[in-house]
Amino acid sequence: MTGGTTDDGAGRVSRRRAMTLAGVGVAGVAGVAAGAGALVRGAVDHAAAPADTASGAVPFYGEHQAGITTAAQDRLHFVAFDVITTDRARLVDMLREWTAAAARMTAGKDAGIYGAVGGTPEAPPDDTGEALGLPASGLTLTVGFGATLFRDASGRDRFGIAARRPAALADLPHFAGDALRPEISGGDLCVQACANDPQVAVHAIRNLARIGMGVVSVRWSQLGFGRTSSTSRDQATPRNLFGFKDGTANLKAEETDLLREHLWAQPGDGADWMAGGSYLVTRKIRMLIETWDRTSLAEQETIVGRTKGSGAPLGGKAEFDEIDFAAPGPDGQPAIDRAAHVRLAHPDFNNGARLLRRGYNFVDGSDGLGRLDAGLFFMAYQRDPRRQFVPIQTRLARQDLMNEYLRHVSSGLFACPPGVRDATDYWGRGLFG
Amino acid sequence: MTGGTTDDGAGRVSRRRAMTLAGVGVAGVAGVAAGAGALVRGAVDHAAAPADTASGAVPFYGEHQAGITTAAQDRLHFVAFDVITTDRARLVDMLREWTAAAARMTAGKDAGIYGAVGGTPEAPPDDTGEALGLPASGLTLTVGFGATLFRDASGRDRFGIAARRPAALADLPHFAGDALRPEISGGDLCVQACANDPQVAVHAIRNLARIGMGVVSVRWSQLGFGRTSSTSRDQATPRNLFGFKDGTANLKAEETDLLREHLWAQPGDGADWMAGGSYLVTRKIRMLIETWDRTSLAEQETIVGRTKGSGAPLGGKAEFDEIDFAAPGPDGQPAIDRAAHVRLAHPDFNNGARLLRRGYNFVDGSDGLGRLDAGLFFMAYQRDPRRQFVPIQTRLARQDLMNEYLRHVSSGLFACPPGVRDATDYWGRGLFG
Repeated sequence: MTGGTTDDGAGRVSRRRAMTLAGVGVAGVAGVAAGAGALVRGAVDHAAAPADTASGAVPFYGEHQAGITTAAQDRLHFVAFDVITTDRARLVDMLREWTAAAARMTAGKDAGIYGAVGGTPEAPPDDTGEALGLPASGLTLTVGFGATLFRDASGRDRFGIAARRPAALADLPHFAGDALRPEISGGDLCVQACANDPQVAVHAIRNLARIGMGVVSVRWSQLGFGRTSSTSRDQATPRNLFGFKDGTANLKAEETDLLREHLWAQPGDGADWMAGGSYLVTRKIRMLIETWDRTSLAEQETIVGRTKGSGAPLGGKAEFDEIDFAAPGPDGQPAIDRAAHVRLAHPDFNNGARLLRRGYNFVDGSDGLGRLDAGLFFMAYQRDPRRQFVPIQTRLARQDLMNEYLRHVSSGLFACPPGVRDATDYWGRGLFG
Repeated sequence: MTGGTTDDGAGRVSRRRAMTLAGVGVAGVAGVAAGAGALVRGAVDHAAAPADTASGAVPFYGEHQAGITTAAQDRLHFVAFDVITTDRARLVDMLREWTAAAARMTAGKDAGIYGAVGGTPEAPPDDTGEALGLPASGLTLTVGFGATLFRDASGRDRFGIAARRPAALADLPHFAGDALRPEISGGDLCVQACANDPQVAVHAIRNLARIGMGVVSVRWSQLGFGRTSSTSRDQATPRNLFGFKDGTANLKAEETDLLREHLWAQPGDGADWMAGGSYLVTRKIRMLIETWDRTSLAEQETIVGRTKGSGAPLGGKAEFDEIDFAAPGPDGQPAIDRAAHVRLAHPDFNNGARLLRRGYNFVDGSDGLGRLDAGLFFMAYQRDPRRQFVPIQTRLARQDLMNEYLRHVSSGLFACPPGVRDATDYWGRGLFG
């Protein structure tokens, strides 16, 4: 460490402490920039301690990107960008800048070394300031590359990387019932910001967009609240907007062998730069909650295949019971309908395919027809969508009893590279380096 | 109390405890409904203890509606409804049902006595279930009546109340620069749900909409995060999406005399049924954050009239310093520009007019032009908008340096009646009773 230490010894420096040190306002700026710089340089090199509270910092550097197996935080701001330059060097420079800013922000610091109130009065601040005084809040930032980055809609290989497109990044097929809106689907790049404070997640995305000005343009973005999946055995299964527990059989961070098999791209999978990465499928699924709310409890439970209260499979007793799909109900027929959601999505009926789901509930105001525009922003990480999401969704789209209450309106597929190893590494180095 | 007590003695019964008691799933329902009913009847009559944590319950009954001077919670779901019936009795019945459901939900319970997993399997549940297991989370529900409830756009007095319209509920004038979208403005009724968990706020609005099916239709709704004002001296001033502290001079819950003068409608103000109520102005203000982020720190501080770091007025030292608008800056001119936001909005330049602001930041995805659709959902409560919001906004709209970065896209004005006294009272009894 150099200069006046504000590091707490565990690598954490809060924005509040940085601000106190940096003084305030135009008048106080002159003598401060150097000190603020030293503070930052001394602190970024540490990997932060694991978050032990909702306000702590999640380590940024590592074998895998954070934000995938990280215990799902409560809030999401997801953004998809179009790249608006054809200059490869500018794109790579931006990815380097993004990486440095992400390392800082996930540690609870400002996006740039001068911060929101440092630098010179004549320049725009290098942080937008709305997170001043807020802790790291478990922020993770996870980047992904869309198929159009490799070859755009008109077939151009803008950045000389078309040959490096992974086979697993194959365009998703059309699924039965899809009602996708192209303007909120796809994208050349994506960033998933998850945090336990929405202001921190929004701040992070906004500052990446600011840094990327002239290189990228926001294509679409989505806020989410109320995680709908658990990614750790320590987390209770939350409820979706149908009022049910869903995704009980989700891959969990503790299941190392399963993660190797189902989550992380492996050397030899076809694109070496993706080894240690994962493929993210996003689907914005509008839920017709007003129609659902007029449906009887029995019908709701039949559709889902679970009881609404405990989340136990029908015919079972507790949420995590092994599901017996043959167990008879009162009428002698299987208690779980053959077209129930829980059955069609279960690994037993999908060649063992599993996903790490990380979705969030959303409400985007109303739909102009007197209804709330609400639903699930589904996100699932996996080793190869061709063997996982695609076959699962193909069956669900054809048969799931729940389809009557769902509309898929947005879709995305992104190759999320492995983790950033240290401060010399950057998002996408394996692809561009 | 009757039957098996699940009340904790302070009037609080959590959904989790209610659920445990009520058993789970279709199979467990038969013997439970009576017990659940008793549980509820025993508990609703208490005023809950004041929330001492983010998860506690805020008392529902009282002289004033909760959610106005209540220490501002972190999350908002606001909804405006159109009334789609002309049957006064049906409207009043719904208001009674809403009041009962609001009393339950703000106490951390299901919307109806059978709850999400009680009742009979053949009926839709009387709670949608996504808040099962979540605590009260400081939920407040605050209702308001729009001018169109008294006389609709075509001049009809649908409910025989046109003569009772308060003079203070006069239509807002057009302000310079207004870019209002009618489809997300106005409304016959509004409900403001504030909570420290967005899922709890969303759940409450959704269940009121469900109860109101056939009587009301959602006109528009808005989610907000990150309160932008403090309504109690115990709360720090938060930051808006320009990165600044704003609303430092907000009315606070502790300022009883000022609240009487500026916040609560008084007997003799012109509509007796509104005594103890307040008038709510909502404005959805898009902030052009990408443009703002390219502006220098000095320019930003000039526009606001405060330093970005501490929030101190320019020329002052600390946020809560009395502002000296004559204090000179380095160049001998007043440190605070004559058209700075803080000056134009200050009571000294508005005949002493003050507001209780209660706004929230919002991000509604992107705008299709490569930018985040973000800003402030401004909410301000007051005794009479004609003497408070209207003159203040008239000056701001004409002169505020900040206007270059703002677009007002939605507007609403609602008469929020006084509080519900007890379980025999209901929202709007003074108007309809």
